Amino acid sequence: MQFCYCGISNNKIDNVNECQLSAELKQEIHSYEAVANKIIEEIVHGKFKGHTYDMLAKFIDKFGPRLTGTQNLEDSIDYMVELSKNLSLSNVYTEQVTVPAWKRGPASLRISSPINREIPVMAIGLSNGGKVTAEAVVVASFQELEALSDDQIKNKIVVYNPAFTSYGETVKYRSRGASVAAAKGASAALVRSVTQKSIRSIHTGMQTYLPNTNKIPVGTISLEDADMLHRIHKRGEKIVLELDIDTSLSEGTSRNTFVDLSGSQPNISRPIVVVSGHIDSWDIGDGAMDDGGGVMVSLAALHFMKELSLTAKRTVRAIFWTAEEQGLLGAEAHVKSHKEEEDLLSFAMESDMGTFAPRGLDFSGSHEAGCIIQEILQLLSPINATEFKTPLDGGPDITFWAQNGVPASSLLNANEEYFWYHHSVGDSMLVEDPHNLDLCAAVWTVVSYVVADLNMPLPR
Amino acid sequence: MQFCYCGISNNKIDNVNECQLSAELKQEIHSYEAVANKIIEEIVHGKFKGHTYDMLAKFIDKFGPRLTGTQNLEDSIDYMVELSKNLSLSNVYTEQVTVPAWKRGPASLRISSPINREIPVMAIGLSNGGKVTAEAVVVASFQELEALSDDQIKNKIVVYNPAFTSYGETVKYRSRGASVAAAKGASAALVRSVTQKSIRSIHTGMQTYLPNTNKIPVGTISLEDADMLHRIHKRGEKIVLELDIDTSLSEGTSRNTFVDLSGSQPNISRPIVVVSGHIDSWDIGDGAMDDGGGVMVSLAALHFMKELSLTAKRTVRAIFWTAEEQGLLGAEAHVKSHKEEEDLLSFAMESDMGTFAPRGLDFSGSHEAGCIIQEILQLLSPINATEFKTPLDGGPDITFWAQNGVPASSLLNANEEYFWYHHSVGDSMLVEDPHNLDLCAAVWTVVSYVVADLNMPLPR
Repeated sequence: MQFCYCGISNNKIDNVNECQLSAELKQEIHSYEAVANKIIEEIVHGKFKGHTYDMLAKFIDKFGPRLTGTQNLEDSIDYMVELSKNLSLSNVYTEQVTVPAWKRGPASLRISSPINREIPVMAIGLSNGGKVTAEAVVVASFQELEALSDDQIKNKIVVYNPAFTSYGETVKYRSRGASVAAAKGASAALVRSVTQKSIRSIHTGMQTYLPNTNKIPVGTISLEDADMLHRIHKRGEKIVLELDIDTSLSEGTSRNTFVDLSGSQPNISRPIVVVSGHIDSWDIGDGAMDDGGGVMVSLAALHFMKELSLTAKRTVRAIFWTAEEQGLLGAEAHVKSHKEEEDLLSFAMESDMGTFAPRGLDFSGSHEAGCIIQEILQLLSPINATEFKTPLDGGPDITFWAQNGVPASSLLNANEEYFWYHHSVGDSMLVEDPHNLDLCAAVWTVVSYVVADLNMPLPR
Repeated sequence: MQFCYCGISNNKIDNVNECQLSAELKQEIHSYEAVANKIIEEIVHGKFKGHTYDMLAKFIDKFGPRLTGTQNLEDSIDYMVELSKNLSLSNVYTEQVTVPAWKRGPASLRISSPINREIPVMAIGLSNGGKVTAEAVVVASFQELEALSDDQIKNKIVVYNPAFTSYGETVKYRSRGASVAAAKGASAALVRSVTQKSIRSIHTGMQTYLPNTNKIPVGTISLEDADMLHRIHKRGEKIVLELDIDTSLSEGTSRNTFVDLSGSQPNISRPIVVVSGHIDSWDIGDGAMDDGGGVMVSLAALHFMKELSLTAKRTVRAIFWTAEEQGLLGAEAHVKSHKEEEDLLSFAMESDMGTFAPRGLDFSGSHEAGCIIQEILQLLSPINATEFKTPLDGGPDITFWAQNGVPASSLLNANEEYFWYHHSVGDSMLVEDPHNLDLCAAVWTVVSYVVADLNMPLPR
């Protein structure tokens, strides 16, 4: 998950009591109770128990990090294409996307005054390289930086040490910190990792240079070291840092991957339901959580429906987006080049906020569509995943569609620890749990199947 | 904290109701209520608020890791000697101890089959160096290893991936895993880090080669990577690892540090009360938690008593033990060379299990002494630190004394996350909290002052 796109929709549905679905529609939804129970039973306790975890573990153990622009990502895409075909899913294809191939070289940071010590550092994604030795100025916020004169910042290294409030709020220092510091004449910037918890972990991510500012190198450091620099700065001691970041940037290509479980009625109204996640990851962790889990529950949903001979009226399409971490580039390219297909979509789902114990769904779309989703969520009562929240707060790749009115849901799950591991070496299979992955796969399967099989599409 | 020495004492005092202290003694203890309240008030809300944290932060920021045998440890000891003198404490001196000067060189681990990837690794303390390329056998326990034939282990690398149960139970793989594997012919060993939680963190510590076994190199890897190797092994795929560990071992010297706040009645019965922590740390984290906090609350107790003009009848002595991490060597040397002084001790306290929110004290000693400590803990009601547990489960350095009958207490605190950071790069000021350090310093000051000032020593 790269950014949070919050508050896309104005359709706030706070209370299930506000819904007034027809008795007929309610009855239709409730008629899926037996099949929903069967799906849940087979995935959580029956013949598919543990399969999603095993498929994910094999994938993650084989490929590990899958940075946009690397051969390893493309190999992992080939593997998912083969796996999908081996699972007898139809219409498996990829579409090429032009992407930046940004590479991380060695990075080092040393504090040489008032103490002499190496500090672990990592370039922030898309940062330029550079070698800077300069005095450091440590601030807790943009406001604090703005209160300083340009003379106080010129040729310095600005260190941002903001407290974590929310990801959406705090990530601005990672994404714009370099340009804001450069605008005041800084030579380089360092940003406290965006996480609530740390075992001296470093968390990377993307940043964007703003127009008309120097493209200065920017790195991220641990909470521990950002705090240390802040303490020394507050004591009034002059800090000298030696930063050396090596990066390179070229153009590459990658691919979005599409896998269909074809519907029985291709001419039905809005004949496609999408389940999705992104296959690319950052280069340092294993990308199990961000977003191997989302990719694998999406494939699992199709696989389990196929195995259970559940053919919905509509096609359920799994999409494994690429280059999400570089700015939702795979999704953006697809939406742009397939504008005419948007009308074919009944519903778009994405899991990119973790696959911990599922609680239900986030949603953006019309009031009536939201009411239908709430009703469908009742089918997940056996696994307590009936929670409904709106608007969408996650599901970054499907935001383009959601903004254009396509009903869209992100997996709501018990992801309180998500940012502890996010974009760090800690994003691994250790945070994935077989039972929780089964539960997530059950949510994905039940919801996508029912929406794909309803007589009417989700209303816009 | 190196090892847990649990269950030293057989004197189990489970219930305060079992205590039958004389009314006179109870009255004497309760007469300290006003002074205890004054101590707590000044440390937690008054003129000493935040001082312990600030003193600790300055110390940690200046020295960071303080491995036994390094000049940095000796410099940090000099600093504490100077600081103690500057705080006008008396009788500040050090005593030399012969210690191993074990040094960590570079270490690398690569899995070359069935995948090719670097795996972060670290030598376990006192491991020999060595370069081994071999097939890996992954086991979850010693029992699982024993069930394999020597032929299955000969010339292999044994990887231990035990689940964390308790530190005391799980640390045996780190401390004896190399020798147990070597006894079956293994060429090297790797051990899952001893922690419940990980962001791919690696946790070092000490190991001991058992007699008559090959001293094979042994490293520790993260939970994430141990799990990965275990998964691949369970799939029946052959794992080839390339391990290269560089270490060196020579003899060095270090020093225990002693600081007194002299008592008013040197000829009183058992005229010394000890507060202590260890000043050495592992070489990778900052040693703020293990055990900078214990050292600093001990110094703070003396400093605050001095500032509050609280002169007890007995001397309160702060000891900053050295080489705890290498096997309690500072404490062992001191106890051996000062056998005759044991009779002078009324009470020995140690903080080496973290300085999080204090809950009270662990204790080993006679039933009556335990009853007195429970009564004294009532004085800590204003900060809810009245909990009493027995026997001692922590306080490793003072165990030698406790085993010989000296009443001894370890700081009981809300350290549920202690092992998340223990012996890792995560042991830093980030886990220390100014308010909690104030509370710990208040516990240390109240208890040591009252025990030092009682008319009678704690009975043996």
